[in-house]
Amino acid sequence: MQSSLDALKSILDADCLLTDNDSLQQYGKDWTNNYSISPLAIAFPKTTDQVAEIVRWANKNQVALVPSGGRTGLSGGAVASNHELVVAFDKMNQIENFEQSTQQVTCQAGVITEQLQQFAMDNDLYYPVDFASSGSSQIGGNIATNAGGIKVIRYGLTRDWVMGLTVVTGKGDILNLNSGLIKNATGFDLRHLFIGSEGILGFITEATIKLTRQPTSLTVLLLAIPELEKVKTLLNLFQKDIELTAFEFFSDKAMEKVMKHHNLPRPVESEAPFYCLLEFDATSEEIIERALSCFESGLEDEAILNGVMSQSQQQADELWKYREYISETISSRKPYKNDIAVTPDKVSDFLHKVDSIVSEHYPAFEVIWFGHIGDGNLHLNILAPEDMEYKDFISACEKVNPLIFSELQKMGGSISAEHGVGLLKKPYLSYSRSEQEIAYMQGIKLAFDPNNIMNPGKVF
Amino acid sequence: MQSSLDALKSILDADCLLTDNDSLQQYGKDWTNNYSISPLAIAFPKTTDQVAEIVRWANKNQVALVPSGGRTGLSGGAVASNHELVVAFDKMNQIENFEQSTQQVTCQAGVITEQLQQFAMDNDLYYPVDFASSGSSQIGGNIATNAGGIKVIRYGLTRDWVMGLTVVTGKGDILNLNSGLIKNATGFDLRHLFIGSEGILGFITEATIKLTRQPTSLTVLLLAIPELEKVKTLLNLFQKDIELTAFEFFSDKAMEKVMKHHNLPRPVESEAPFYCLLEFDATSEEIIERALSCFESGLEDEAILNGVMSQSQQQADELWKYREYISETISSRKPYKNDIAVTPDKVSDFLHKVDSIVSEHYPAFEVIWFGHIGDGNLHLNILAPEDMEYKDFISACEKVNPLIFSELQKMGGSISAEHGVGLLKKPYLSYSRSEQEIAYMQGIKLAFDPNNIMNPGKVF
Repeated sequence: MQSSLDALKSILDADCLLTDNDSLQQYGKDWTNNYSISPLAIAFPKTTDQVAEIVRWANKNQVALVPSGGRTGLSGGAVASNHELVVAFDKMNQIENFEQSTQQVTCQAGVITEQLQQFAMDNDLYYPVDFASSGSSQIGGNIATNAGGIKVIRYGLTRDWVMGLTVVTGKGDILNLNSGLIKNATGFDLRHLFIGSEGILGFITEATIKLTRQPTSLTVLLLAIPELEKVKTLLNLFQKDIELTAFEFFSDKAMEKVMKHHNLPRPVESEAPFYCLLEFDATSEEIIERALSCFESGLEDEAILNGVMSQSQQQADELWKYREYISETISSRKPYKNDIAVTPDKVSDFLHKVDSIVSEHYPAFEVIWFGHIGDGNLHLNILAPEDMEYKDFISACEKVNPLIFSELQKMGGSISAEHGVGLLKKPYLSYSRSEQEIAYMQGIKLAFDPNNIMNPGKVF
Repeated sequence: MQSSLDALKSILDADCLLTDNDSLQQYGKDWTNNYSISPLAIAFPKTTDQVAEIVRWANKNQVALVPSGGRTGLSGGAVASNHELVVAFDKMNQIENFEQSTQQVTCQAGVITEQLQQFAMDNDLYYPVDFASSGSSQIGGNIATNAGGIKVIRYGLTRDWVMGLTVVTGKGDILNLNSGLIKNATGFDLRHLFIGSEGILGFITEATIKLTRQPTSLTVLLLAIPELEKVKTLLNLFQKDIELTAFEFFSDKAMEKVMKHHNLPRPVESEAPFYCLLEFDATSEEIIERALSCFESGLEDEAILNGVMSQSQQQADELWKYREYISETISSRKPYKNDIAVTPDKVSDFLHKVDSIVSEHYPAFEVIWFGHIGDGNLHLNILAPEDMEYKDFISACEKVNPLIFSELQKMGGSISAEHGVGLLKKPYLSYSRSEQEIAYMQGIKLAFDPNNIMNPGKVF
C-alpha cells in the first residue's frame, strides 16, 4: 500500500496528500453522524488532469474513491467507511472564465456556492440556486446531487443552470460535455446523466454555469393558514397572477420553537396550524396590487386567516427568519430528517397520512414540518422524547420509514427530494425506482465505471 | 415473415397494421428526401402495453423498429430504409389527464404540438415550445429530438417542460420516469437520457408536460443592423433590462426573398445587411419604456440603424412574417440546410468564416442565413445556382460540410442544434462529440437495447 501511496504522491502537488487522523476524520464524512469513518488518505488535486491520473491510479491499484466537496450532504454520499481514497475538491476553487454576453461563468468544482453567488453580484448578475448550506457547499457537490433549495419554484434546480461540465469517468476519461451551448441535439446529453449521479459514474471537475438578471425588489408575504388543504387553493390563486420566487410552509410547532429560541415576536396576529411564506419580485406597482388582490381573495375564500406583507428589504429578511431559522433551532434535538416529495396537489393528503402513522406508532414523538411546499418538497423532522436513548430513537424511526415510504410509493412520490440517496436512502430506493430502473442504472454504471471504483456502495 | 406479421396483428387492434405501398411510402419517411424508403409494415399501437408487446415481438423475430411521429424531422431520424417495422404514434393522440394546481398535463406521445398548445389556451395556460412544424409534429417526436424553436431564449427547450415520461425500452420494459415530481434526487434521471435520444434507447409513449402562465402582451421590435458584430452588443443591452421571449435574425437576402414572394412592404426604412427581431412580454408600461430606452441606446451606439416596434398584436404578427416566411419562401429552391449552433458570443465570427468558406469553394452558391441568434442557433441554407443538377449540388455541399464542421469543432459548437443527428448528421458526429463520448453512448445503448432493435443505424 505504501508504494502505491508514493505513486499517488507523485501525481499530486506537494502537501496535497494527507493521512493524519484528524484529516481522515474531517474529510472522510459529510453532515451525517451515523457512519463509521475510515478513509485511506485524502487527496487534493488542483486540475482535471490530476483527477484523471488519480482515477487511473485507483483502477490500477484497485482502490475505491470517494468525492468530497463541501461535505454538507445529509445522505452520507461523501462518507468513506472502507479505506477509500477521498478526493477533496477544496483546492480546485478557481473561477476560470466569465463571458458577459452569454452570462456564463466557468468554474472549478470546488468553488463554494456563496463564492459564485458573490461573483454574480459583482457582475450585476444573479445565481439563484440558494439553500442553508450555501456558505460551505461546493458547485461540484451541488451538481452531483442536483441541489434545490428555496427558489426552485421560480428558478428551478441546479440542473437548470449547468451549461457545461467537465467530468472524469470511472475509466479515467476526461469528457467535456456541452461546453456552454444552449442548443445541441447530437446524441444523449451525458451532462444530464452526471447531474444528480452522486459521484458513482465519475467526478465533476469543472462546470459552466449560467447566471441571470438580479431580482429588483423581493417582497415577502407571511400568511396564517387555517388548514393545509388550503395550500392548493393558495398556490392556484397566486400562481395565476404572479410569478412566485418562493412558496414555503411550516407548522405552528416549528414557528413556536423559532420564536422561543430566537426571542422573536409573533409575526401575524392569528395563531394557526400552518404558515406559508410567499416571495415575489415586485418589479412594478402593478404586481404589488395583484399580490394584494390575491391576498384579499384568499381572505374571502377563507384560505388565509391573516397575513403580513414586507414593506422593505429589511422587513422581508425579518420574515424569512421564521422559515430559515427552523433547522438550526431544532438541531440540538438531533431530529430524524426525511427529505421527501410528492406533486404539490398531494401534499396535504400525504402530510396527514404521515402524521397519523407517526402518532399511531410513537405518540410521544414530536413531528416538525416545514419545507418547499410550492414544489411538493417536505422536510419531515421527528424529535425524540427527552428521555429516550438516541440509538433507540433512530431504530424506532427506521421502523416507521417503510410505512411512510409505502405511502409515498402509492402517491408516486420521492424518498429523496433534494438530498440524494447516498447511504441513508439506499435501503429504500425501490420505493421510488422500479426494479427495472435500478437494473438500467446499474448497466449505465458498468459502462462508465467497470471496476466499480467511483464512490462504490452509494445509491444502489 | 408472414407468420410473424400475423403474430403482430394479434397484438394490435383491427386495421392497425398497414402494408400497402402508399402507406409504406408515407409512414416510412420524414421531411427529408435523400433516403430510400423501404419499411416492412406500419403498426399503429393505441397503448403503452401494445408498444411493449411490439418491442418484445421485434426482439423475438429480430425485426428492427423505427418510431414515427409527425414525420417533420429534417435529419432522417424517422426514415425506414431496411425493412424495419415502423411504429407510428398517430393513434396514441389522447390528452389523458390535467391537474390544475400543478399545471401539468399528461398526454400520449402522438398528441400534436398544436393540440397541446390549444389545450393549454383552453385552460388559460400556455405551452411555450413553438416552431414552424407545430401543426404536424407530435409531442413524442419533440421529446425524442429535444425540439427547440423560436421561444428558447425565454422558455428553454422541450426538455425543460417534461415532468414525466413513460417509455418502452429496447428490452420491452415499461419505465415510468419521474411522474411529475419537481424534486426527485433518487439516482440517475433517466428521463433526461431519453429526451433527445432519437428513439435509439426506446420509444416514448406518454409524457407529463408542465404548462405556464400566458404572456399578456407580446411586443415585437424589428431592427436593421449595420453589421453582425453588433448583435452581441444588442443582446447585452436588451437582456440587461428586459426578459426577451425571442431574439431572431435574418440576412437581407432572406428578407428580400420574403418581400418579393409574399408581396410585403419593406418593414423598416433603412436597408441593412442583417435584421433582428426581438420579442418581449409588455406586462407593464414600464417595460415598454425600458425597451424604448434600450432602443435609443442601440441607436446611439450605432448598433441599430433603424427599427419599428409593434403597437398591436396584429402588427406584431405582421412583423413576425418576415422571419417566419423564410423557410417556406426558399423551399422551392430545395436549399441544403445545416442546423448548427455556437455560443451566442461566437455567432458573428462563425458566420463570417462560413461565408468565406462557401464563397471560396462555390462562388455561385447563394447563402441564406436566419435563425435563433439569441441562443446561438443558426440555420444555414445554401441555394444551388439555377443551372446546376440537384445531385451535383448536394454532393458539392457535402464536400463543404467538413470545412464548416471543422470551424464548429474549433469553436466548441454543435453540428446539430435542434434537428437531431438521425442519418443526416451521423457521418459528422465526431465533430461535436469525442470518440470517448460516442463509446459511452454506445455502452448506454447496449444496456437499454442489447439486440439493437430500436431505430438502429441512427445517430451512431
